Amino acid sequence: MTDPQTPSQQPAPEGGGLLRFRLVLAYDGSDFAGWASQPDARTVQTELGSALQRVMRSTARITVAGRTDAGVHALGQVCHVDLPAEAWPGDEAAVRRLNAVLPADVRVLAADAAPVGFDARFSARSRAYEYLISDTGMLDPRSRSCVLVHHRRLDVPKMHMAGQVLLGEHDFAAFCKARPEASSVRTVLDLQVVRRADPRDPGLIAVDITADAFCHSMVRSVVGALVAVGEGRLDARRLSEVLAARRRVSLFATAPAHGLALVAVEYPPDDQLAEQATRARRYRG
Amino acid sequence: MTDPQTPSQQPAPEGGGLLRFRLVLAYDGSDFAGWASQPDARTVQTELGSALQRVMRSTARITVAGRTDAGVHALGQVCHVDLPAEAWPGDEAAVRRLNAVLPADVRVLAADAAPVGFDARFSARSRAYEYLISDTGMLDPRSRSCVLVHHRRLDVPKMHMAGQVLLGEHDFAAFCKARPEASSVRTVLDLQVVRRADPRDPGLIAVDITADAFCHSMVRSVVGALVAVGEGRLDARRLSEVLAARRRVSLFATAPAHGLALVAVEYPPDDQLAEQATRARRYRG
Repeated sequence: MTDPQTPSQQPAPEGGGLLRFRLVLAYDGSDFAGWASQPDARTVQTELGSALQRVMRSTARITVAGRTDAGVHALGQVCHVDLPAEAWPGDEAAVRRLNAVLPADVRVLAADAAPVGFDARFSARSRAYEYLISDTGMLDPRSRSCVLVHHRRLDVPKMHMAGQVLLGEHDFAAFCKARPEASSVRTVLDLQVVRRADPRDPGLIAVDITADAFCHSMVRSVVGALVAVGEGRLDARRLSEVLAARRRVSLFATAPAHGLALVAVEYPPDDQLAEQATRARRYRG
Repeated sequence: MTDPQTPSQQPAPEGGGLLRFRLVLAYDGSDFAGWASQPDARTVQTELGSALQRVMRSTARITVAGRTDAGVHALGQVCHVDLPAEAWPGDEAAVRRLNAVLPADVRVLAADAAPVGFDARFSARSRAYEYLISDTGMLDPRSRSCVLVHHRRLDVPKMHMAGQVLLGEHDFAAFCKARPEASSVRTVLDLQVVRRADPRDPGLIAVDITADAFCHSMVRSVVGALVAVGEGRLDARRLSEVLAARRRVSLFATAPAHGLALVAVEYPPDDQLAEQATRARRYRG
């Protein structure tokens, strides 16, 4: 149970007796038009908003770490809401009551009062995405809504090696949907392409990418490029040139949404949350 | 590519230039009214029959190893069909062409000419089923159509231990839908209940049961009983008494279909296929 008086918890910036609470979510993106509320569309934000309204009588704004696109899944999505302390029924009760009213394709995995300085979006130090591909013809059909089936065998070590040219800070304009007002400079912290024994397919390919943040469609474009590498249509040098040219090219397709999942959001230790948020706001806000 | 003249292949018993071919199938049972053809229902047998008709112009009867119920999945289902040798396009082409016309929830994993003496149903030495349960609140929502969500924590070692009383040859009438004309004597060869690290849930419970054959609803009844054990509502001694009484009881529910999958069918070495089929026909035919 939460004691909403603990001093390490965060009063919401707006004050007025509000406290900030954080939620960890998982969802099957198949039947959602993405995270963000839109008129006449079923979105995760809308469903969670309705649940918060029913359980906590709150219409508070929900701030999310990673705004996923239509069809993209999430296993460790993080968001925050600012609520009157008395609206919070305790951490376990919040999880249980929200799950009781949420549809089966969205689950709250954890909920608690946020530490001081926490902002689901701006305090995040990195996001990790995973893209799943089956090229063996042996995919468990129960997993077809979250794995891309590819009909030609892919050279996974070559994909992994080529992907390493993307590590570090670069302008990823070649891999992003253009948004002229926004920077497309990002820092890729880790990129792994492996085949792994998986109950869904004994040779399932996982592309795991971690970055400070991602611009729009970046993971799916990178995966499209790596698939072209795995087919032998593109090599590491050409990939390097594409990155350096900072313009979108037609050498590879953007991989479809259903293979992608936001798997984790990483935050710094509690005493660095505010500092991280200030830095990220300056950089992206 | 198959050479349909290889002498180790099986001429179909009906003769007339027919050869016997075997197929290994996987399917997502969610949208099927089970394996067996029924009027006005979508079944796996009907879909596969249509595909065989389109690709091989065959209306041959399909014989299956395990007739799965509505909603039950399969990963290593086996069946056979008797076709004119010239209708077979080769093994790889058969897989590719059948998959090209089958809906995405049924996949042919392998296809070849059957060895002499092979009968998908009667030559099978054992069937292995797996039932998946999540009691952690951490289930990946993408897997909710093939895992039972249970809201109370289960004692898995206790379930495993209790399950061992079912090993060996018994009359499983207490766990079967009554069919007065048929024997409900079966031999359970292996039963394991484990928690395992799984991408779908870090504490996913798998109940794995192998038997020579199963009577109707047997796996789901056994799983229902083991869930009652895991909740502390039933113990190994009481389970033993229920088995010995050979009558259905209301101490536990039949677990729902969507957690269940036929994972494998095991056959003896090729030179014992005919003998196994003769034995099984005498026993069950």
